[in-house]
Amino acid sequence: MALKVGVIGTGMIGQDHIRRLTKVLSGVEITAVNDIDVERAREAAPYNAEVFDTPQALIESDNVDAIVICSWGPAHEEQLLACIAAGKPVFCEKPMVTSEESAIKVIEAEVAFGKRLVQVGFMRRFDSDYRQLKRVIDSGVVGTPLIYKSVHRNASVPSHYISDMCLNDTLVHDADISRWLLSDEIVGVEVRYPRRSNVGGNDLKNPVIVLLHMAAGAIVDVEISVAIQYGYDIRGEVSGETGVASLPNRPATVVTDMNGIRQAMPEDWRERFIEAYDQEFREWIIAAEQGTATGPSAWDGYASTLTADAALRAADSGKFEKIAMIEKPALYGEQHAMAAE
Amino acid sequence: MALKVGVIGTGMIGQDHIRRLTKVLSGVEITAVNDIDVERAREAAPYNAEVFDTPQALIESDNVDAIVICSWGPAHEEQLLACIAAGKPVFCEKPMVTSEESAIKVIEAEVAFGKRLVQVGFMRRFDSDYRQLKRVIDSGVVGTPLIYKSVHRNASVPSHYISDMCLNDTLVHDADISRWLLSDEIVGVEVRYPRRSNVGGNDLKNPVIVLLHMAAGAIVDVEISVAIQYGYDIRGEVSGETGVASLPNRPATVVTDMNGIRQAMPEDWRERFIEAYDQEFREWIIAAEQGTATGPSAWDGYASTLTADAALRAADSGKFEKIAMIEKPALYGEQHAMAAE
Amino acid sequence: MALKVGVIGTGMIGQDHIRRLTKVLSGVEITAVNDIDVERAREAAPYNAEVFDTPQALIESDNVDAIVICSWGPAHEEQLLACIAAGKPVFCEKPMVTSEESAIKVIEAEVAFGKRLVQVGFMRRFDSDYRQLKRVIDSGVVGTPLIYKSVHRNASVPSHYISDMCLNDTLVHDADISRWLLSDEIVGVEVRYPRRSNVGGNDLKNPVIVLLHMAAGAIVDVEISVAIQYGYDIRGEVSGETGVASLPNRPATVVTDMNGIRQAMPEDWRERFIEAYDQEFREWIIAAEQGTATGPSAWDGYASTLTADAALRAADSGKFEKIAMIEKPALYGEQHAMAAE
Amino acid sequence: MALKVGVIGTGMIGQDHIRRLTKVLSGVEITAVNDIDVERAREAAPYNAEVFDTPQALIESDNVDAIVICSWGPAHEEQLLACIAAGKPVFCEKPMVTSEESAIKVIEAEVAFGKRLVQVGFMRRFDSDYRQLKRVIDSGVVGTPLIYKSVHRNASVPSHYISDMCLNDTLVHDADISRWLLSDEIVGVEVRYPRRSNVGGNDLKNPVIVLLHMAAGAIVDVEISVAIQYGYDIRGEVSGETGVASLPNRPATVVTDMNGIRQAMPEDWRERFIEAYDQEFREWIIAAEQGTATGPSAWDGYASTLTADAALRAADSGKFEKIAMIEKPALYGEQHAMAAE
Repeated sequence: MALKVGVIGTGMIGQDHIRRLTKVLSGVEITAVNDIDVERAREAAPYNAEVFDTPQALIESDNVDAIVICSWGPAHEEQLLACIAAGKPVFCEKPMVTSEESAIKVIEAEVAFGKRLVQVGFMRRFDSDYRQLKRVIDSGVVGTPLIYKSVHRNASVPSHYISDMCLNDTLVHDADISRWLLSDEIVGVEVRYPRRSNVGGNDLKNPVIVLLHMAAGAIVDVEISVAIQYGYDIRGEVSGETGVASLPNRPATVVTDMNGIRQAMPEDWRERFIEAYDQEFREWIIAAEQGTATGPSAWDGYASTLTADAALRAADSGKFEKIAMIEKPALYGEQHAMAAE
Repeated sequence: MALKVGVIGTGMIGQDHIRRLTKVLSGVEITAVNDIDVERAREAAPYNAEVFDTPQALIESDNVDAIVICSWGPAHEEQLLACIAAGKPVFCEKPMVTSEESAIKVIEAEVAFGKRLVQVGFMRRFDSDYRQLKRVIDSGVVGTPLIYKSVHRNASVPSHYISDMCLNDTLVHDADISRWLLSDEIVGVEVRYPRRSNVGGNDLKNPVIVLLHMAAGAIVDVEISVAIQYGYDIRGEVSGETGVASLPNRPATVVTDMNGIRQAMPEDWRERFIEAYDQEFREWIIAAEQGTATGPSAWDGYASTLTADAALRAADSGKFEKIAMIEKPALYGEQHAMAAE
Repeated sequence: MALKVGVIGTGMIGQDHIRRLTKVLSGVEITAVNDIDVERAREAAPYNAEVFDTPQALIESDNVDAIVICSWGPAHEEQLLACIAAGKPVFCEKPMVTSEESAIKVIEAEVAFGKRLVQVGFMRRFDSDYRQLKRVIDSGVVGTPLIYKSVHRNASVPSHYISDMCLNDTLVHDADISRWLLSDEIVGVEVRYPRRSNVGGNDLKNPVIVLLHMAAGAIVDVEISVAIQYGYDIRGEVSGETGVASLPNRPATVVTDMNGIRQAMPEDWRERFIEAYDQEFREWIIAAEQGTATGPSAWDGYASTLTADAALRAADSGKFEKIAMIEKPALYGEQHAMAAE
Repeated sequence: MALKVGVIGTGMIGQDHIRRLTKVLSGVEITAVNDIDVERAREAAPYNAEVFDTPQALIESDNVDAIVICSWGPAHEEQLLACIAAGKPVFCEKPMVTSEESAIKVIEAEVAFGKRLVQVGFMRRFDSDYRQLKRVIDSGVVGTPLIYKSVHRNASVPSHYISDMCLNDTLVHDADISRWLLSDEIVGVEVRYPRRSNVGGNDLKNPVIVLLHMAAGAIVDVEISVAIQYGYDIRGEVSGETGVASLPNRPATVVTDMNGIRQAMPEDWRERFIEAYDQEFREWIIAAEQGTATGPSAWDGYASTLTADAALRAADSGKFEKIAMIEKPALYGEQHAMAAE
């Protein structure tokens, strides 16, 4: 009685999720795969899984209870709408969609359906360090959050990575986790470029400082650096009225030798967030078995799209760029308790 | 085609392993349970699992590929020998057996069978912090290990816990992990009792310092404290010829407030080692599917029994108590590379 | 043959410096004091020190080799000019002066004299943690500095403290240390106010985020919080092209108990910087014995005045406020090596 | 009216103390020096200081208020007795004397004089980290101390260093600080030699583990390593009934780069304890001005001699070697409050 899952998109991330769903997690089996490249789908398909010619056919198959979307971004809207039309829970990798209009269509469809079906792949929310940090914030031990500092450093980026991707692809993780940690929405964005790093070989506007202005007034101060060389360094610290709470360093053997007292840094996001990815799907499976979804929602995907758009505008204008959201449907929970009076 | 597992002993730890094998891990199903209390077995049995009247019947069932033994210690010898006789992989909780003679019988049976079948429940070897520490030691970055310091502190112990259990039940974890980290055997034990703690309410000889002398000459310096109140504090540090390597603190939100800059300590072994328990079974399943066992062996169970016995003698005598092992069968690997010249 | 020092201004800070110069440091004696309140001067005067009626008389006294100015800010210009006219080394507490015009007059007088005589009281430059950080930056181990993050948190501020003082009095420490660490000048300032803290009882615009734009392009990102309750928390971290370097926590006993693993935070600036104050005067004495001054100069005092002025404008305008400096006289060293190409 | 100090012994340590007393500290001047090598004394003598032919003449000079003894150990007894006979405060470097009999003679002379005159050079007691640790222990926050762990690692030792010096010269620091931290006396010593380090080039029994048994029952567990290569690593941790308190790492810039997240280790004892040496003399000067002494006493020097002797015996015998002290004269304070019931 395992959950029967169909996977759309069997590229690198799709293959990794297939591995996760077959080798790591319990209560689930992959019964269907689809990819724009049929041969690749065939190779990625686990034993007994059917290879479908189209996403639509996979989504509608009686042998598929729930869907995992790992296709490229522009294809997501149609696939998500088909899942909702079929009433099937769906996990969708980032970006949920690639435009505000698409995001609103997905929200409207889900609201019309009347129950959450969509979970978007913001895996940081499933990381135990972030979860502890959120519990500390919500406990009130540091008082009302006033500033959140997010640091996002990659050792390096692939050669096709361009400056806009700092804001379009990288920033969205910091933006989503900030919204979640602070239980608040982003209402405006500013972007500042410090002196450019000459390291990394590509002509990137790197690093970048982004200020996210939250509805309740807190400011999120983000540093993104994508060619820091030394590792994958993710930090987060909230300054509250009466205290400060920070993500810890990752556990690593403390070595004392001629290089000092030292701990290794994670090499990349795979190493850093491997358990978060597992947990993300563990919780998705549990909800999907109930025919619904929890975790990051279509609303969060919508907010992410708006933030990336505003950040790109702010990078061009050098000014504060406002974000205006539609009214939040009740399906996605009440307006946040911490909103400004 | 999941591995069919029978569980013997459905007390607290047995129930937890049933939960783990049914809810957390993949590639496995529980098809059989047995307990000395049939009613308890019935309640613990997952859907579709058969309740057996005797361990023997469970072990021999065609519907059981591999066995998990969580019965009480004195029953282990007979159950392990039955598993080996049936040629089935078996996971056995600590203590493997309760006497040197029993341990040797298990070893002899397994050697006669010609292949490893037994994995003993020393879960620390599956903890990622200990594994990193071992990698660092084995890499040679701190030089040859000369001293290993192990700290084992429990917030509190149950009312039935008596002083001997510090050496019989608690010490074995430190002893096993030391043997593993240093790739060496224990050849002698000394026990010292510092001033006794008046905290904890029971009349325990607590804390205790144990010196384990290793074959290659390193000394393992163990502090055991079983009523430290504040949490479960497990530390390990190796002093090598040219460097020192230590377990890190567990990751916990860094809170700065009126209590200082602080991180929470794990409450108990469940919180501390939950992932190690999962990983322990993940690897057991993989080996059991191949009809064999990896990880802590019957030889390690035997060493553990000898260490506990010697520690109890040393606590009485106040002297160095020697440990003499039988010759190590080839099945359990070559003599350790680091043994003294 | 100790250095004969006259102290102008015997309020709280003046008294503390008198204590320092008489009880802590060697090679110095206080021979003269002056205060607008003669009675206060008399009480603060060490044995054998003469109480002067006017700053001018003290400065010109043959029994005074060097002067320490601890009077209030608006009096500094005249006193500094008198010291320079007398050719005597002078230590001047912050603020050096209270307007750009005054600062330029002091610079011009000193340049005309032809030798440095003025040291301004930016004590952070004498703190061993900051000095280590600067050595690390200058060593190149983290690459060219791109971002510097400065955190400045006070437990509380006196009742007369008003919002402008965050920028006028508090920020100047972060600004000066940033210029020194990065060997660069500030060319522009932005100020952002996050959600206001309701803690502290006074109606302050607190906390505040300040972005200092450096000539070479680095951005200094300052968080000032003046009512954080828990202690005095000073942090600094430079993000370079290939690494990051941070001030360490202050050494404090690591206590593990029911409150977790924790270290105490300094209570206030006195506790945090007590050794820096001593060292500041130790080096001042050495230079003054040679009839000159080292450390923070009139140029640094001038830069500090400009930064505070620009920050106040930026707080009002919400915009980037430019700083334009006069050409740097050779007396104050060459233009910085790291300036943008 | 500065304290007039005569220095006996102008070797390396004597020269360093002359520097300290003339360049760093206030309220003191060196008026007299003596050395077995007159030429060396002459070179080391500050301006205006008289060079004496004999220690006796220096001690008795009217121009000497207090004496600093930096001669070699066997000369200390006679010089200390002369100081006491002259009624002059004296700072004596370690070892106070070289035999139990000598120590008792010094104690008896001082007791007969009726007032403390002798301060022995255990500088760790003046280190701010150790002082904080003692305050934490004395506050009771970790409960009654049961175990104290002391780690003493030197990067390397000079070529004349032999194995006995681990116990005779190095251990005494750990022994003295343990007595002071725990407010208790040592009643017995055990010594264990782990596998020997092959690093360092000299044929030393290194490292060594020493167990100091305290009167109240606590055990002090000391690790001494004298050729660890990487730096000077001094650690201390007390395990109490309900908590643990440890010395912090020394503050050092936190660098994150390809070598991980790391902090430098002090290179040697000069770097580690430079401030403790200054503070040691600061307090000595204050007491000497009152014609007396505070800090580590002749009693502590006596205890140190007994511990070194017992440790050497224990290294030979492999057994517990008892320490028996004479009754403590009231001059040295009451018996410790924490002594066993």
